[in-house]
Amino acid sequence: MDWLDQVKWNSDGLVPVITQEFGTKQVLTLAWMNREALQLTAETGHAVYWSRSRQKLWHKGEQSGHQQIIKSIRIDCDQDAVLLEVEQKGGIACHTGRHHCFFNKLEDGQWQAIEPILKDPDEIYL
Amino acid sequence: MDWLDQVKWNSDGLVPVITQEFGTKQVLTLAWMNREALQLTAETGHAVYWSRSRQKLWHKGEQSGHQQIIKSIRIDCDQDAVLLEVEQKGGIACHTGRHHCFFNKLEDGQWQAIEPILKDPDEIYL
Repeated sequence: MDWLDQVKWNSDGLVPVITQEFGTKQVLTLAWMNREALQLTAETGHAVYWSRSRQKLWHKGEQSGHQQIIKSIRIDCDQDAVLLEVEQKGGIACHTGRHHCFFNKLEDGQWQAIEPILKDPDEIYL
Repeated sequence: MDWLDQVKWNSDGLVPVITQEFGTKQVLTLAWMNREALQLTAETGHAVYWSRSRQKLWHKGEQSGHQQIIKSIRIDCDQDAVLLEVEQKGGIACHTGRHHCFFNKLEDGQWQAIEPILKDPDEIYL
């Protein structure tokens, strides 16, 4: 049986993907893949996601240069979630110019942005 | 505006939740919460999820004793994914008796279980 057949794709044909930085172990993003994206990720060694907003394949870093080089691909006990370990090029995973996307922390009943913007998005997406 | 209103719940009223172990930074699980689960998690300081298979609130560790004590709650840039940092009681997050759920690694075109079972599930769920 093909390893891609063992993934439990949801009703949209997608699986949620947690991407964690190699070394720091920081959780960078939660994104989604369809079958083709996961196959391309494994074959090319670069993270390829499915953009739900644009409804097309999203080669991470194609515009920003902030590619993710695959170190490992894991799946969970229920085969319905994937965990990638990656090297994050440029040290920026988030489109806001931050290291990672989970920069809002719940404090005193409010989401507080607690991580610095490392690069102005206008300079990332020219 | 209530912090719970700022979460972008999906069409089922759920949000995906990544749970990461405090200290080791190991990603333990990907699970789901509805509004009540996230509110209870914040209020009680223990992880409460929504079980999609059982369609009810799931107080993590209620059977196994493997509770998750909340250290922080974060949300991502799009407000559609949550990241918890937790202390994992018993050192076992997975129902298979392993430390975490992402124990299957893609190697040579196959998912290989590469993490040890720390405790027999029959001894966890009596």
